[in-house]
Amino acid sequence: MSIRSMEDLQHRLTEFVAARDWEQFHTPKNLAMALSGEVGELVAEFQWMTAEEAQDVMRSDAAESIRMEMADVFIYLARLADILDIDLFEAAEKKIALNSERFTKRGVPTDS
Amino acid sequence: MSIRSMEDLQHRLTEFVAARDWEQFHTPKNLAMALSGEVGELVAEFQWMTAEEAQDVMRSDAAESIRMEMADVFIYLARLADILDIDLFEAAEKKIALNSERFTKRGVPTDS
Amino acid sequence: MSIRSMEDLQHRLTEFVAARDWEQFHTPKNLAMALSGEVGELVAEFQWMTAEEAQDVMRSDAAESIRMEMADVFIYLARLADILDIDLFEAAEKKIALNSERFTKRGVPTDS
Amino acid sequence: MSIRSMEDLQHRLTEFVAARDWEQFHTPKNLAMALSGEVGELVAEFQWMTAEEAQDVMRSDAAESIRMEMADVFIYLARLADILDIDLFEAAEKKIALNSERFTKRGVPTDS
Repeated sequence: MSIRSMEDLQHRLTEFVAARDWEQFHTPKNLAMALSGEVGELVAEFQWMTAEEAQDVMRSDAAESIRMEMADVFIYLARLADILDIDLFEAAEKKIALNSERFTKRGVPTDS
Repeated sequence: MSIRSMEDLQHRLTEFVAARDWEQFHTPKNLAMALSGEVGELVAEFQWMTAEEAQDVMRSDAAESIRMEMADVFIYLARLADILDIDLFEAAEKKIALNSERFTKRGVPTDS
Repeated sequence: MSIRSMEDLQHRLTEFVAARDWEQFHTPKNLAMALSGEVGELVAEFQWMTAEEAQDVMRSDAAESIRMEMADVFIYLARLADILDIDLFEAAEKKIALNSERFTKRGVPTDS
Repeated sequence: MSIRSMEDLQHRLTEFVAARDWEQFHTPKNLAMALSGEVGELVAEFQWMTAEEAQDVMRSDAAESIRMEMADVFIYLARLADILDIDLFEAAEKKIALNSERFTKRGVPTDS
């Protein structure tokens, strides 16, 4: 069965975790740390690249590593959202609405 | 129009960025950094909580902050995936298949 | 009394934490998370800069923010090292020796 | 020659980098990313531990890995400070002074 939606992904992860008895490890604190660790690995892929090399990274030897690091980040984010009962699409929609008020068009980005 | 899928989200972000002329900032290196910054903010929400407090966090005053930090992480992950032309669900499915081979059931988790 | 060495810094932090009854919060897991949060804030300072802007950042308006974010990272690193009883200079010396074997001169950097 | 101070460490790193022609890679943005990647690896060491296991980690099999990850974080922090010409002890002293005003004694920690 292929994964095509957030529900599919979270359902598959629930099964994966249950089959290995890992629920005990998947606490909010631990999953936030795991997410942070995976983002660290993703950032590490890009750290020595020039802006130009990074732009073309998906045509380089690093493409598959980056795809798998992105997957790891997505997996832990989806899992943490499931544990916390957060609807990520709904949350993103609300945050974008807030950002739309905060940044008038043609502005300068700041950290959000 | 509400956001209910990855395509919806990425489409909305493309419009948001274009309306502000921010494409120049949304390079792979910069977006990886932004993702890292947002995960740092998410981790910071949990850093002083006990395991028990973190478990109940969505019934605490921190619930909305956590929802919005999760949204920020999701937004930058979706945006980076779009820029790199990575299908996150497909990548997650492949990574889960790899992890299924790597971790036989009833094993111990390690960092992936 | 000014802080001029790791011992000075760790001693001052021990006093600071004791005066606020924060020892209970300064566990290894929590301090690792706090370190991660502070590095996230540091990275966020650089995220939208071009390589050229980042090179000149200490002559920009962001200089003081960056100095204070670096301080936060250093503070939590020193504190975690103290709690874990790790001599950071000794550890760094050993790691550099390992890296010297691993990377022969004129090589290409990889993540360590 | 053993490393016993920040000056020793930064001097050794300058030599190490020069011998490998890596100055071109050691830009502020890249070093901030490398620091973030190393903190991710450090956090990953702790992510599945209980609070109790983390407390005893330096008597566990993970002790040497943690020492070496702490070293990596310290190395990149020292290197970035050198590149940016930031005196880390001076910056830490200033930040602690600011925190002393911000957090009256017997308060509750927040992220800084």
